[in-house]
Amino acid sequence: MKKIRTEADSIGEMDVPATAYYGVQALRARQNFPITYRPLHPEFIKSMAKLKKASAMTNRDAGQLSETISEAIIKACDEIIGGLFKKEFIVDAIQGGAGTSANMNANEVIANRAIEWLGGEKGDYGLVHPNDHVNMAQSTNDVIPSAGKLTTLVLMEKMLFQLQRLYDSLMAKSREFDPILKMGRTQLQDAVPMRLGQSFHAYASVLKRDIQRIESTKQFMRILNMGGTAIGSCINVSPLYLENICGNISKVTGENFVMADDLFDATQNLDGFVSVSAALKTCAVNLSKMCNDLRLLSSGPKTGFEEINLPARQNGSSIMPGKINPVIPEVVSQVAFNIIGNDFTITMAAEAGQLELNAFEPVVFYNLFESIETLGRAAGTLNDNCIEGITANPKHCAELVDASVGISTALCPAIGYAAAASIAKESLKTGTPVKELVLKKGLLSEREVEVLLEPFAMTGKPLEMMK
Amino acid sequence: MKKIRTEADSIGEMDVPATAYYGVQALRARQNFPITYRPLHPEFIKSMAKLKKASAMTNRDAGQLSETISEAIIKACDEIIGGLFKKEFIVDAIQGGAGTSANMNANEVIANRAIEWLGGEKGDYGLVHPNDHVNMAQSTNDVIPSAGKLTTLVLMEKMLFQLQRLYDSLMAKSREFDPILKMGRTQLQDAVPMRLGQSFHAYASVLKRDIQRIESTKQFMRILNMGGTAIGSCINVSPLYLENICGNISKVTGENFVMADDLFDATQNLDGFVSVSAALKTCAVNLSKMCNDLRLLSSGPKTGFEEINLPARQNGSSIMPGKINPVIPEVVSQVAFNIIGNDFTITMAAEAGQLELNAFEPVVFYNLFESIETLGRAAGTLNDNCIEGITANPKHCAELVDASVGISTALCPAIGYAAAASIAKESLKTGTPVKELVLKKGLLSEREVEVLLEPFAMTGKPLEMMK
Amino acid sequence: MKKIRTEADSIGEMDVPATAYYGVQALRARQNFPITYRPLHPEFIKSMAKLKKASAMTNRDAGQLSETISEAIIKACDEIIGGLFKKEFIVDAIQGGAGTSANMNANEVIANRAIEWLGGEKGDYGLVHPNDHVNMAQSTNDVIPSAGKLTTLVLMEKMLFQLQRLYDSLMAKSREFDPILKMGRTQLQDAVPMRLGQSFHAYASVLKRDIQRIESTKQFMRILNMGGTAIGSCINVSPLYLENICGNISKVTGENFVMADDLFDATQNLDGFVSVSAALKTCAVNLSKMCNDLRLLSSGPKTGFEEINLPARQNGSSIMPGKINPVIPEVVSQVAFNIIGNDFTITMAAEAGQLELNAFEPVVFYNLFESIETLGRAAGTLNDNCIEGITANPKHCAELVDASVGISTALCPAIGYAAAASIAKESLKTGTPVKELVLKKGLLSEREVEVLLEPFAMTGKPLEMMK
Amino acid sequence: MKKIRTEADSIGEMDVPATAYYGVQALRARQNFPITYRPLHPEFIKSMAKLKKASAMTNRDAGQLSETISEAIIKACDEIIGGLFKKEFIVDAIQGGAGTSANMNANEVIANRAIEWLGGEKGDYGLVHPNDHVNMAQSTNDVIPSAGKLTTLVLMEKMLFQLQRLYDSLMAKSREFDPILKMGRTQLQDAVPMRLGQSFHAYASVLKRDIQRIESTKQFMRILNMGGTAIGSCINVSPLYLENICGNISKVTGENFVMADDLFDATQNLDGFVSVSAALKTCAVNLSKMCNDLRLLSSGPKTGFEEINLPARQNGSSIMPGKINPVIPEVVSQVAFNIIGNDFTITMAAEAGQLELNAFEPVVFYNLFESIETLGRAAGTLNDNCIEGITANPKHCAELVDASVGISTALCPAIGYAAAASIAKESLKTGTPVKELVLKKGLLSEREVEVLLEPFAMTGKPLEMMK
Repeated sequence: MKKIRTEADSIGEMDVPATAYYGVQALRARQNFPITYRPLHPEFIKSMAKLKKASAMTNRDAGQLSETISEAIIKACDEIIGGLFKKEFIVDAIQGGAGTSANMNANEVIANRAIEWLGGEKGDYGLVHPNDHVNMAQSTNDVIPSAGKLTTLVLMEKMLFQLQRLYDSLMAKSREFDPILKMGRTQLQDAVPMRLGQSFHAYASVLKRDIQRIESTKQFMRILNMGGTAIGSCINVSPLYLENICGNISKVTGENFVMADDLFDATQNLDGFVSVSAALKTCAVNLSKMCNDLRLLSSGPKTGFEEINLPARQNGSSIMPGKINPVIPEVVSQVAFNIIGNDFTITMAAEAGQLELNAFEPVVFYNLFESIETLGRAAGTLNDNCIEGITANPKHCAELVDASVGISTALCPAIGYAAAASIAKESLKTGTPVKELVLKKGLLSEREVEVLLEPFAMTGKPLEMMK
Repeated sequence: MKKIRTEADSIGEMDVPATAYYGVQALRARQNFPITYRPLHPEFIKSMAKLKKASAMTNRDAGQLSETISEAIIKACDEIIGGLFKKEFIVDAIQGGAGTSANMNANEVIANRAIEWLGGEKGDYGLVHPNDHVNMAQSTNDVIPSAGKLTTLVLMEKMLFQLQRLYDSLMAKSREFDPILKMGRTQLQDAVPMRLGQSFHAYASVLKRDIQRIESTKQFMRILNMGGTAIGSCINVSPLYLENICGNISKVTGENFVMADDLFDATQNLDGFVSVSAALKTCAVNLSKMCNDLRLLSSGPKTGFEEINLPARQNGSSIMPGKINPVIPEVVSQVAFNIIGNDFTITMAAEAGQLELNAFEPVVFYNLFESIETLGRAAGTLNDNCIEGITANPKHCAELVDASVGISTALCPAIGYAAAASIAKESLKTGTPVKELVLKKGLLSEREVEVLLEPFAMTGKPLEMMK
Repeated sequence: MKKIRTEADSIGEMDVPATAYYGVQALRARQNFPITYRPLHPEFIKSMAKLKKASAMTNRDAGQLSETISEAIIKACDEIIGGLFKKEFIVDAIQGGAGTSANMNANEVIANRAIEWLGGEKGDYGLVHPNDHVNMAQSTNDVIPSAGKLTTLVLMEKMLFQLQRLYDSLMAKSREFDPILKMGRTQLQDAVPMRLGQSFHAYASVLKRDIQRIESTKQFMRILNMGGTAIGSCINVSPLYLENICGNISKVTGENFVMADDLFDATQNLDGFVSVSAALKTCAVNLSKMCNDLRLLSSGPKTGFEEINLPARQNGSSIMPGKINPVIPEVVSQVAFNIIGNDFTITMAAEAGQLELNAFEPVVFYNLFESIETLGRAAGTLNDNCIEGITANPKHCAELVDASVGISTALCPAIGYAAAASIAKESLKTGTPVKELVLKKGLLSEREVEVLLEPFAMTGKPLEMMK
Repeated sequence: MKKIRTEADSIGEMDVPATAYYGVQALRARQNFPITYRPLHPEFIKSMAKLKKASAMTNRDAGQLSETISEAIIKACDEIIGGLFKKEFIVDAIQGGAGTSANMNANEVIANRAIEWLGGEKGDYGLVHPNDHVNMAQSTNDVIPSAGKLTTLVLMEKMLFQLQRLYDSLMAKSREFDPILKMGRTQLQDAVPMRLGQSFHAYASVLKRDIQRIESTKQFMRILNMGGTAIGSCINVSPLYLENICGNISKVTGENFVMADDLFDATQNLDGFVSVSAALKTCAVNLSKMCNDLRLLSSGPKTGFEEINLPARQNGSSIMPGKINPVIPEVVSQVAFNIIGNDFTITMAAEAGQLELNAFEPVVFYNLFESIETLGRAAGTLNDNCIEGITANPKHCAELVDASVGISTALCPAIGYAAAASIAKESLKTGTPVKELVLKKGLLSEREVEVLLEPFAMTGKPLEMMK
């Protein structure tokens, strides 16, 4: 039995393993791009197959592709969508050529598998041709950005599920901790009293905005340039294809896609991906800040703030016995830093587009998909292995409130800022409590002082008033 | 006459020029922060005055501030809003202390001017006190982020006006250039024909999305934490103030502001500014890409693409006579790079917030205001000094279409990708036109070839179909 | 046979597969950090083993560790250094805990393998203990940054080899292309004549600086904090260990390492890695600029600059027959964008260190190792698949020189800038060559014109004068 | 008297105020670039004048420029170097055209002033011509990057002086605080004891490296492309000029400059500026980390770490009386964030160079000069207003050491990690001191415990051993 088959492209002939579903173009690309040694994202491979399937359906209905070939292509696509043939996608995740290699890898695998369904042998492109049939009415220019959008939406869904779970846990904690009085700190200095539940409510509130912000960028992912083929010109596309392709993609995916009004624009500009990345980055910023707070609040156990306890997840040190570290918040911050760096790469790549195409989509996807997935996973482990298990130290929190002079803020309306400042300073210096000093100086009556300096009253709106 | 007056704060006493409206706290800050030697943004100063004015109105109506003092404060604020007393704001744009120095600088100037309106002398804080009266029911924690939001909205308006003008010009050019046939290029290689108008339409299309994207971030700027005072606790704020402050700010500014549901969140998180900056960054990316295209298309005059001519704006060289350079697109790209760098500063500063406050708002504003203003101005000069005056070289464009073999793409549906590739290759090698080769090889009839290779037919949707 | 064994740590008991060399701590970490699903870099695993080996040697010689245990540990380390047990390293590349999990994963695998060498069964930590023996005189605080440095140096070597090859090829091309006259362009506008070899020499020159710049950052990688253990305090370390550990690491690795003067500094600050990343970034900037130039110079084949031809490496399009794209320069630019984004992540992570430790080393390494490796590979494919095969189009280059008016620059010393500018303008407008106009206007004699306008004379220093 | 004079350039005629030293080209540029409304850096203006002066000297000695004109030019340059005519430099700091406008602005001012010295009237360019005389043997391509390098070196000097002062103060503090025992913290969790002096020594150590790192980038600033004129070709330059220009610049400036070996490389690549910016960024990272530590260590006064006291510099709050904030460290971190953002702008601008020139130098300088200056100023205020005045709370530090269980680390060599961990856990849970538990369990003798748990002994090398 033959071990190789010979294929040809514009460059010349080349030997391909006889068992391979990929062809000469994928093989050349593999040699050209030994960069990350990481494959295309599995979901991206599926997305290309979904587009190829929808195209075969549309070309068939438009009378451009025979029923037989169309069905064979669709079967092959369904297999890929089901998770098969992953190893046949051999091109590197970061590749030159604007994704032509990825697209051709898909075209070749689908063609060869369709050929088999039609009883042929791999490489018999007379039966099903990678370009003429599988890629019919398509171009790398429209398939690749569109596959990126499909993939983004699929990955986003899992991530948003994790963010929502995290939000729910933060809200639950905000209710659980609402009765706990503690000192608020600004610039790491004692400020005024607040309730621990309010801290967690604030974390939930910003996360809610993040979820909405990310949701709202889906709009950019739902507008495709399929049908635009080369540069958005719609060259080699039948009117029926143009009319129906996005509808068919919607059917295949279950998402609602529409065609871009301006296909040239949709082919050359990557701003939609920049928007998604920016929303992820903003969420990363907020999660990292929250995790930094968690590390501060749980610092100690004896030399720190010690207001809350993160659940112990693992030994904290290879040398310091008994040490427990905030490992989950730490990993979340690292994910955040990585997402922020990814955002810069995406920004630069988007800016570098020239004329009718941006050739740098592969590196955009490489970074964007990682950002989406790691953000979701970071939120997942933050929820499961940290937030849900946080406990509070109400007694220590109360002691800190008692020790601090921040409550003197509440004296200002009654005795003025300058007098209150002098009280605060004296209390800090002498250790005499604020209340005692006010009475000693006869500035207010005991009743007045008690009302003014009741710390719970200083903590603002009850929880139920905050949406 | 006295040349100085002595003021005191918690640190001690200090001499202030007798004529100064600012006081001891601004003066200390000036000494602490000799960083950029650039003042607070003039619009930011006005924004603080607007907030102080609305606060005075609200405190008066809440019965917390006498009619007399309130009116004096309002008069002083109106003067600042009108542009007076700019030089009295002496603190550096980048300052520590979360903006306390900026806030106190405003409190001091307003107090001293109000004192004058009441017949007193500067420094006579028994009449009007910077903290107790001007800053009543306020804190740096709420005033500074809110002033940042007011300022952002004002500056955005001018910028959006310039973006809109640019959009209109691009649309006009897209109509003007719609009849001009030219080659499309992907990856700087000859692709397929298109119309020059489609290039400009694509630029307009992405800019339209940018305008919408920026507009949609205004929502984050309209939610204030005024009334939250320290850390969002609403300490020292009367219920009536809480109820009415945002309404009064809306009256004073003519914008529609609402109070944040979660004031702790709104005090500690700067994600709204991150969102604005991200939208600016995305627009910068798109403008820079467009400007890079303009430089490519106008490259030459003899050794480049030479498809369009940018208006000559200035001598291009100090040594090369007759040289004209694309100076306007170049300045736009530089502004874009600067905005992208600013975005990362803003991102880092937002991430670095700790617990109940982000102390790094000054550097956020320093960068954000610059980004907004320079984006608008770059769009303005791009419109006035470049886009409006662009002319096309239709003849050269047509010659390039004729010379290239990209039109062979249109042969694929008829003769297949492989045969078309072989024709293209031969044409490139021999110089024989594609059309001639197809006929010579008898692949298609003359009539078929003529229909297939009509370049205008390859250029896709007519302009009126693109929204 | 037992399928599991039970291990315990500070958190409690846990089942570990009986066949596993890793232990309870690695297993917990795996559950805590389901982030990237990518393992530690294989070279980093080896680096940890090298450090553990050197430590066992040093502890043995210091009389702290028995000969028997020491030898068992060394054997186990040697196996790992040889490439075995990779799959036993199960913790995620991005992890919380400052690398404690990675360190403990190594300690566990080495302990269990050493136990086997001593005839025991996995888990019998009475024989060899992960902490007490394998980790003796070490801490995550010193092992992890040191392992990062060892790894960086190893990966750098391969990368520098590729950069050097690329440099050699660029120099060879600069000699090959030295006789070819072409137009120089500034701001994409025709400037003055130059030789094509000078273009490639400039690429070589900047790359030479990059190589030196990267080389010079090795100094930071050769200073270790081994012996510092927890926070740099040298707690639990014998004087003999302190004296000899770096020498032994040098023996094990063949590199020359020294101990940091200030071990606290060396434990908490990651500036060395920031320096390495900055040097990589700078090289990435230069390579991307060079690749952008290559794409410009090879643009066409009919509608671009067309001065050089990149070797055809693969079909350029799935729809446009005959199209060949600059895929190699494109992949290099993408790698550059990715490295620049990585640099930002590394920068942020380094800045986020707190007090005696930076807990974010894992994400620094994740990005840094990728940057080093992809930079080297990008240089490799750029060399092999692009630079070496570049050919020039001297005829077209010469035509462009003839067509342009840039040579009028050479008239300035003779007739002044203003007169030369007027000649250039007229020539551009009328198409009359510059030379003809000068003669027609009687500004210079024919002999003078010929000398002045000889383009080769305008191209500066001969190649041999440039180092 | 005439109020205007009329000047002409390639674009046409234009009215210039009769009193203006600048000419038509500066005026056009001012209209083209209404971007930042910030002028060229004053030191950059002086740098251009230094180059023009050295050029006039060199051209005179080469016999290209008459003694008379040369002397007039030199006089005009000297005036500008002395600080005069600043307001005549009217072009925006961010400008298109690669700095041609800045160069021509200088040429025009110098020409007009030289004309006056020769007894002529402004605009009488027959006497001294901006291009033919002032710009003789120069081009924007060489003047602008060279002026950037001169400026960088001048500004660096002031900055390095401030960094050195800061280093000295940190070293002084490290000696002052060397006897103070405190807990070290990793990941904000109690680690092992250390001395406060070691913290400050670590800050000094990393700063020392920063100073060296910045110093070492000066090498890139000392290599000029003067003489390269257009694109590095040396067109219109006499051999004597080439030989002597860098020597003359060295004479004029007092710095030691040399000519680049490869003038094409030196004209098109901006990697030297990227290197400088990277070194600044690394220093910014380290300073920001240090400042974050200072804020942590001084957190409180009652609810934080409270180990050190920063000097009170100003009131900390407009509403919270008595509050003192770490305003100086906060401003330093903001400067650091800004410098990091600037670094990315510089990176992007450097990457965007095309072929024989990088047109984006103005935005590089805009950011680089700001980075250098603000870094120096931030270091200055950090030294003067913070570090020098820091005091320690040795009693509180000691209490924290006593309270914590981190000292149990020292038990490991004696009783093993597992037993030590169990002691630490029990101590934390029950509050019984570690020492007591060890004795109670009979694990060690009293003498052994005392030796092992002596905290000072755990703090590592004495200060004098650290360089």
